[in-house]
Amino acid sequence: MVDIADIRAAAERVLPVVVRTPLISSPVLDEMVGGRVFLKAENLQRTGSFKIRGAYNLLSQLTQEQAARGVIAFSSGNHAQAVAAAGTMLGIDTTIVMPEDAPQIKIENTRKLGGTTVLYDRYTGDRETIARQMAAERGCEVVPSYDHRHIIAGQGTAGLEIVEQCREAGVTPEQVLINCSGGGLTAGCAIAISSDFPDAGIYAIEPEAFDDTRRSLDSGKREQVNVSAHSICDALQVATPGEITFDINKRLLAGAESVTDDEVREAIRFAFRHLKLVVEPGGAASLAAVLSGKIEMRDRVTVAMMSGGNIDAELFSSIQSTT
Amino acid sequence: MVDIADIRAAAERVLPVVVRTPLISSPVLDEMVGGRVFLKAENLQRTGSFKIRGAYNLLSQLTQEQAARGVIAFSSGNHAQAVAAAGTMLGIDTTIVMPEDAPQIKIENTRKLGGTTVLYDRYTGDRETIARQMAAERGCEVVPSYDHRHIIAGQGTAGLEIVEQCREAGVTPEQVLINCSGGGLTAGCAIAISSDFPDAGIYAIEPEAFDDTRRSLDSGKREQVNVSAHSICDALQVATPGEITFDINKRLLAGAESVTDDEVREAIRFAFRHLKLVVEPGGAASLAAVLSGKIEMRDRVTVAMMSGGNIDAELFSSIQSTT
Repeated sequence: MVDIADIRAAAERVLPVVVRTPLISSPVLDEMVGGRVFLKAENLQRTGSFKIRGAYNLLSQLTQEQAARGVIAFSSGNHAQAVAAAGTMLGIDTTIVMPEDAPQIKIENTRKLGGTTVLYDRYTGDRETIARQMAAERGCEVVPSYDHRHIIAGQGTAGLEIVEQCREAGVTPEQVLINCSGGGLTAGCAIAISSDFPDAGIYAIEPEAFDDTRRSLDSGKREQVNVSAHSICDALQVATPGEITFDINKRLLAGAESVTDDEVREAIRFAFRHLKLVVEPGGAASLAAVLSGKIEMRDRVTVAMMSGGNIDAELFSSIQSTT
Repeated sequence: MVDIADIRAAAERVLPVVVRTPLISSPVLDEMVGGRVFLKAENLQRTGSFKIRGAYNLLSQLTQEQAARGVIAFSSGNHAQAVAAAGTMLGIDTTIVMPEDAPQIKIENTRKLGGTTVLYDRYTGDRETIARQMAAERGCEVVPSYDHRHIIAGQGTAGLEIVEQCREAGVTPEQVLINCSGGGLTAGCAIAISSDFPDAGIYAIEPEAFDDTRRSLDSGKREQVNVSAHSICDALQVATPGEITFDINKRLLAGAESVTDDEVREAIRFAFRHLKLVVEPGGAASLAAVLSGKIEMRDRVTVAMMSGGNIDAELFSSIQSTT
């Protein structure tokens, strides 16, 4: 399992390479919801998302032999960039299997950061199978994007910073909203935050079409959603929660909520207009939950995760022009 | 004159209403310029620019009698929003004279924040004359946007935060770039920063067509540029430096640099793509100077001001789509 000591150790490891992203407050947002909201701006993180925290924590712990063989990952784009960047920093070759319809910015950046990309069709291929096959052929490690204790511990360092920054700001978070795909960020942050603020309610926020964690929390076991469903949140599309992550989330979460694509678009517009932040669809799910009133905000102190900002200019513009 | 004690007093006054905006660093930017760059993100400030700092500092010091009569301001948009917001917080009526071609977002927000707007033609009318006439008729105060000691002291609180945040980050800024219009933010920040970091070189950054501070520093007296020139930086268009501000800047600045509209556009694109920040043209001048190599960055620690983020979605999109 993963515990707070693992996250503290991960924090030491990633300290030299990650940005301590700010915890941002906005009077406009506070007034609108009638409570206090703090946004953890992981869209401002190196590579444009929190994923570098987990990828670097894992890659930096490979043996020399493992490192020499290179690694393979599969990712819709943010983990891809993170693995490529961490690989380049550590001198490890990286190959990343990505859906061919991933945002251009994510594919381009993965290449620029030094990764080799292998594209597949999201609706007909299975990225995990492709990646595992390649790894078997090469005899090298697969870097999972969430269901691994080093990834969870690394991603949990964002939660550790939330704790420190809440202390610095003199506030006690009553609820924390985390954008949830496979559940690594949610699990890591849940461990870090509940360790210091045991009374904080931690919620996973998912796209409506990929509410596997919500369904799984309801039934108590890992439920499956239709993976060929469509959502604007390209970063939050998994069919089922991770094994390790769900084990942690089942124990630590207060609940889960889902948001519609339109609510996500509205959050991206709000972030542009009022927060002056660029957020990608998957990165805006928690803000969408805040703005749509899905979670009660009034008179409460809420932390919401903005997990990424890698969005193509064309999509961003088209979202801004529709109101 | 204005001194560090005035800025400290202003900081106490504005503390309850302003956001302590983050000092942001970006590994991509650092690697690109070969030095360390810290961005003071005043685009994340309440009302989307630093202007609230000066406006609130002045309005909160009006006598009850002055406050009861309301105030008048003239502004291209950021000071307008700031005066409107400060007025609403303090229960003071505000009327703001704005150019009719100001960004829609600035005019709309000024109204939403509780200000009454009076529009004029930037190329034929003189906003100061219009404002002073109205003030004389109503017997009320004009809130200048830079050339007033309360405004300068208030705007200098951004510089005070830069000092604190550099100390917290354990860095000594060697040069500080401030976007410059009338020179209030530049003067206030110069006082605050030079008081703690006397060796830091402080530079005013202006649009090429409005390089009045650069010309004035060269000649030693307040020079005039053609006010009907065009620049994408709607927030940085003044014909000549303020009297009080130039007096301070003449004494404290290491120099000034100017940037072209294309360099500003490139900075806005870079901020979207790599920093995930929304910056308006006038707010991006310093970043443009950083990226264009106008100021030497290599092996240096530089702080650059991002002074505002109020840009219309249409202009933002059109800048993103041209490379």
